[in-house]
Amino acid sequence: MRIALDAMGTDRAPGPEVAGALAALRAQDMGDLEVLLVGDEGAIRAELAQFGDIPSGIEIHHAADRVSAEDSPASVIRRKPDSSIAVGLRLHKEGKADAFVSAGSTGAVMAASLFILRPLPGVDRPPVGTLLPTARDLCLLLDAGANIDCKPSHLVQFAHLGSVYARDAMGRANPRVGLLNIGEEPGKGDALTAEAYELLSRESGLNFIGNIEGRDIVRGDCDVIVCDGFVGNILLKFYESVAGYIVDLLRVELDKVPDRKVDLDHVFRVLDYAEYGGAPLLGLGGVSIICHGSSPPRAIQNALAVAARAVRSGLVRHSAEDVGHPS
Amino acid sequence: MRIALDAMGTDRAPGPEVAGALAALRAQDMGDLEVLLVGDEGAIRAELAQFGDIPSGIEIHHAADRVSAEDSPASVIRRKPDSSIAVGLRLHKEGKADAFVSAGSTGAVMAASLFILRPLPGVDRPPVGTLLPTARDLCLLLDAGANIDCKPSHLVQFAHLGSVYARDAMGRANPRVGLLNIGEEPGKGDALTAEAYELLSRESGLNFIGNIEGRDIVRGDCDVIVCDGFVGNILLKFYESVAGYIVDLLRVELDKVPDRKVDLDHVFRVLDYAEYGGAPLLGLGGVSIICHGSSPPRAIQNALAVAARAVRSGLVRHSAEDVGHPS
Repeated sequence: MRIALDAMGTDRAPGPEVAGALAALRAQDMGDLEVLLVGDEGAIRAELAQFGDIPSGIEIHHAADRVSAEDSPASVIRRKPDSSIAVGLRLHKEGKADAFVSAGSTGAVMAASLFILRPLPGVDRPPVGTLLPTARDLCLLLDAGANIDCKPSHLVQFAHLGSVYARDAMGRANPRVGLLNIGEEPGKGDALTAEAYELLSRESGLNFIGNIEGRDIVRGDCDVIVCDGFVGNILLKFYESVAGYIVDLLRVELDKVPDRKVDLDHVFRVLDYAEYGGAPLLGLGGVSIICHGSSPPRAIQNALAVAARAVRSGLVRHSAEDVGHPS
Repeated sequence: MRIALDAMGTDRAPGPEVAGALAALRAQDMGDLEVLLVGDEGAIRAELAQFGDIPSGIEIHHAADRVSAEDSPASVIRRKPDSSIAVGLRLHKEGKADAFVSAGSTGAVMAASLFILRPLPGVDRPPVGTLLPTARDLCLLLDAGANIDCKPSHLVQFAHLGSVYARDAMGRANPRVGLLNIGEEPGKGDALTAEAYELLSRESGLNFIGNIEGRDIVRGDCDVIVCDGFVGNILLKFYESVAGYIVDLLRVELDKVPDRKVDLDHVFRVLDYAEYGGAPLLGLGGVSIICHGSSPPRAIQNALAVAARAVRSGLVRHSAEDVGHPS
């Protein structure tokens, strides 16, 4: 098992990437993991030197270029063919790595993954998933922003891809799929969701449990929630910021009490995205996981673990079988 | 100033309505308020009796029928013409009350308000606004669920109606209007928001500050955020439930500490919708405010205060002037 890790992705690259890779290699449950650090070889070596010798399981693959936030995602492959993102994805495509993980520009990783790994047959618009904390377990929301102005048939594909991911990478036996909507009853919603409901109801191979309202998300009744990338992206960013806002409100109150005995670490941890690894791109001919640009080492480590689980479980093969239309 | 209050709206009606009306009358800053309690006269009198004599400023207007959650909003006017909602709105329409407040079925109050108060000239689809707590001030989000599959021109009307409301009912001098979108730059978004951005940029009489992402909402950079009712409704319900979820997470931690000295009332109050009064229906020929079905007396009191402010400031006249197309 060998994962190509973009070493130039985070805001403080390659520090968090190197520390995250080393933590993943040290973890007990990672088996035969090897991490291929892709990026500026000098910078990576300098970072590794701080940890002593380079441990076995770490390799470096030089990439001369680096994608910045200013680069247009659509033209990044053409303009920067030697970027760590493009090089890492090609290593995966050529079979020299089993998966790719990056904390670089979300748009650039999405565009390059699409271009290099290609959509699976039967997948019109590969979605990006994101994991939301709920009162029970994590819930996979997709699409989280890769596709806007979706058609009903796209939401059906998202449902299949999300189900396979929930089974393979999240360990859910019979994933419950909900359709994000503004009412519970069939027929509710806008033109997109009303028709998607019809299609999902008739679809086989899915555990479709119906419409899910905004208020139901945190209750955790679903393993997978499907929606257009417009509302998914707004919801995702809103959730992250609301959690931060409420935690800030709390900190102000807690700071007023000098001898406090309340430990809110658990609350902060539940709401901390770094705990959950990255956002998977689904429906591609490979495994590509996107992390926040502000990822700490723990987030990189978790994303490597998610990627490894996806590879071991056969996510791509299962996705192809599930959405493919065998003739 | 006389406000018709649906006394049969909350889940525990008419208790919270009667207590909320009495609290509003007792408040120092409510001026010459009179509250017309509309509903089952016997039930209202019995409730009032618990408070001693009926104070001046309270009147009762009997309504024989009551809308339940099972009633179809679309046919409630026809099937229950003597409901407290229909009777209260007609009293407002006929000039016997200056505004209407109800905690009844949201769909029924919206449909009946539209039917009885009618849209102002120039308003195609009257929106419902909702107030979101942010790190600074409250922000008005509209549409919060009355209109789905909106056209770009509808969002422009929402922007005007929201601006007038922010000025008249929220005391904002030059309301900043944002367009809810999935990117900051012009041209970002789905078909609806990309075109709405163009229209809003060219519109006069608006302080349009551009696109607002999901993560920007709680920062409080806007007084008014416009969006399609589909995403607005999902966001609103999600916010309410997330706030509740995080507060629950906290309570579990706080309960572990028996001698805690941390007072989180402030945090809970900031996140408590009851503090902010109801959700205004905008663009109608009258003032109609919808409260939660679970409203406590304080929420009813606040909604009455919001309605009174809207009447005193001339909200309906200003709205008509702003969206009307004088020939």
